[in-house]
Amino acid sequence: MKLHYAPGACSMGIHVILEEIGKPYELSSVALKDGAQHKPEFKAVNPKAKVPALDLGNGGRALTEWPAIALYLGAANPEANLLPKDPAAQARALEAIDYVTGTIHPNAFTRQFRPGNFSVREEDHPQVIAQAQENADKFFDLLEKNWTGDTWVLPEGYSVADAALFFVEFWQARRVGKPLPPKLDRHLKAMLERPAVKRVLEQEGLAA
Amino acid sequence: MKLHYAPGACSMGIHVILEEIGKPYELSSVALKDGAQHKPEFKAVNPKAKVPALDLGNGGRALTEWPAIALYLGAANPEANLLPKDPAAQARALEAIDYVTGTIHPNAFTRQFRPGNFSVREEDHPQVIAQAQENADKFFDLLEKNWTGDTWVLPEGYSVADAALFFVEFWQARRVGKPLPPKLDRHLKAMLERPAVKRVLEQEGLAA
Repeated sequence: MKLHYAPGACSMGIHVILEEIGKPYELSSVALKDGAQHKPEFKAVNPKAKVPALDLGNGGRALTEWPAIALYLGAANPEANLLPKDPAAQARALEAIDYVTGTIHPNAFTRQFRPGNFSVREEDHPQVIAQAQENADKFFDLLEKNWTGDTWVLPEGYSVADAALFFVEFWQARRVGKPLPPKLDRHLKAMLERPAVKRVLEQEGLAA
Repeated sequence: MKLHYAPGACSMGIHVILEEIGKPYELSSVALKDGAQHKPEFKAVNPKAKVPALDLGNGGRALTEWPAIALYLGAANPEANLLPKDPAAQARALEAIDYVTGTIHPNAFTRQFRPGNFSVREEDHPQVIAQAQENADKFFDLLEKNWTGDTWVLPEGYSVADAALFFVEFWQARRVGKPLPPKLDRHLKAMLERPAVKRVLEQEGLAA
């Protein structure tokens, strides 16, 4: 298996899952800042020009979409205990993941990291960024108020959903530099204590 | 079970899945145009103020996020044969679903149906809408070129992924009124022939 990733991008969550599983895999870095994702070599891997993409090593095309990769890795590696087997609990994991990847990532972070996608005029960018930061506060507040787990997202324990929440918490606390609400802050700290997460940060060249 | 939906919204895909399963369920319409999703009664159901939300009828909070609801319904109703059991095939279903819900829906359709979310000035709306329509063409073209199924999205046969593709195809062909590429057009027509889809359109007051 080979993970196509970019340091510090949302792919870091999939990288965490691979480290938790602990089986051998390869990493292939995609230089998003240089537009490498739009080059033919990478579009042959993922025509959507995005990371993460996971080459399953079976000769088929790479698996794409964060939630699909996470559920696949969880389901295909039951001994790692990263995905509950009960359909209702599994749905709660996917619900948390999709809120992160489908709402928080695009509407809070893509919006502030790439304001040009959300405004046709450069002079409007500060307003777009301010709106994105308001969104971030609103989304994290909603997660905080509806927290149903203890340390981890699911009451059943640590799962692939924690790796999704981790990358947006990390962006908010470290990249944007804003405080998280208490339960999320405790969650981020618990994640940063995990050996798998420490290895990922080191491999991606990021400071905890 | 009770599905909170809005006629013609993305929730129509979940409505299709419920009709395919064929077990009794209730429908509760949310008047998005009147802002009913922001009222306290609905936010008690889904604090994210969105449809679809599926009340599981077990006293717990409603399940939210299209992909999570779809996978739950597929996994919890194996006799309906709407979700492959193999983790790799299940991941392909979720990959197709997440491309629809995480990319096509927001970047092609939300962008043209609610341009105010993607521009701070009303005079920029035509440009935002034009960009959204270009995105739609690009996304549908990518799906067309990478189509791996026969009639249905997965080579394994009809699945919950077809219900996701259906709602964006329906929007493009019927709501926006633009032609789909040939394989997607054939897919939409095959969907419109399904009794479950016919019942959903009738129940939601939509013309096929």
